[in-house]
Amino acid sequence: MDFTIRAATLEDCKDISRMILELAEYEKVSDQVKITQRDLEQDGFSKNPFFHGIIAEVPEHLKSREGHTKVGYSLYFYTYSSWKGRAVYMEDLYVMPEFRGKGIGKALMSKVSQLGLAAGCTQLNFTVLDWNKSSLDFYLKQGCWDVTSDLGYHCMRCEGDALENLAQGDL
Amino acid sequence: MDFTIRAATLEDCKDISRMILELAEYEKVSDQVKITQRDLEQDGFSKNPFFHGIIAEVPEHLKSREGHTKVGYSLYFYTYSSWKGRAVYMEDLYVMPEFRGKGIGKALMSKVSQLGLAAGCTQLNFTVLDWNKSSLDFYLKQGCWDVTSDLGYHCMRCEGDALENLAQGDL
Repeated sequence: MDFTIRAATLEDCKDISRMILELAEYEKVSDQVKITQRDLEQDGFSKNPFFHGIIAEVPEHLKSREGHTKVGYSLYFYTYSSWKGRAVYMEDLYVMPEFRGKGIGKALMSKVSQLGLAAGCTQLNFTVLDWNKSSLDFYLKQGCWDVTSDLGYHCMRCEGDALENLAQGDL
Repeated sequence: MDFTIRAATLEDCKDISRMILELAEYEKVSDQVKITQRDLEQDGFSKNPFFHGIIAEVPEHLKSREGHTKVGYSLYFYTYSSWKGRAVYMEDLYVMPEFRGKGIGKALMSKVSQLGLAAGCTQLNFTVLDWNKSSLDFYLKQGCWDVTSDLGYHCMRCEGDALENLAQGDL
């Protein structure tokens, strides 16, 4: 299929915001999305951005049923492993349902890997939901491994009042 | 106990490197540590650093049996959630065994939380090994929750030849 992968710009934030919601709906957690187009513009496209993005785009004649030509995206940022050094983290990888099975997801993931290697990273990290077997199978087929299953890593989080209390030392 | 928490500098990299190894030995994976003092200096203390660090230090008269006054550290960096926005990730939290139980770990974690909130973050994220029950209990007591157990998040990784292949599109 005819598509291109390119760096996201400020003008893509509206479509990224739309696709973040689509992905959250697929993951059954759309009520969790607090991020707006404006947040993305501010956090990703000002000095010292918190993330970077890439966009998958199809030509006008292949646009989606609703008229979209931006049909997939990935957000990523650089992180650090105190054992292995520089790493790249893929926060999201999404392709609109009607454009799946055409190699677009693989091409997005390939691009994030290229960018990571170019920046001196030795690891690509991301998370997957354990019920999402089709995504898990896709990733395992690309040679990825499951750090949680194999080494017992658990993702932990502190937020809201608990984070405020922790910061204030009221424990 | 008398101790201070302060931002890490280039001069701390030797001690951070030592403590990274101590932590890996505790986690039974010291063969996994590829990072040197020089890597830390380069990756954490040049323009656009990949991580930031804080150090716990005790006065000279309280130094460790081997003569160390830098007795704990945390490495952290800023990340992004496409649902919730800015987040801070705590890569390591370590206190030397003979200085545990004195509130140093809590103080380090509190500092990372403060820095995160000041930067507009709404989440503090990190990982814990499932067999490390004392750490897990410590974190749960601070109001953190286990995203892997509660929502089924699995950490995934691609590295080595698999990452090279992914980047080249040879899938």
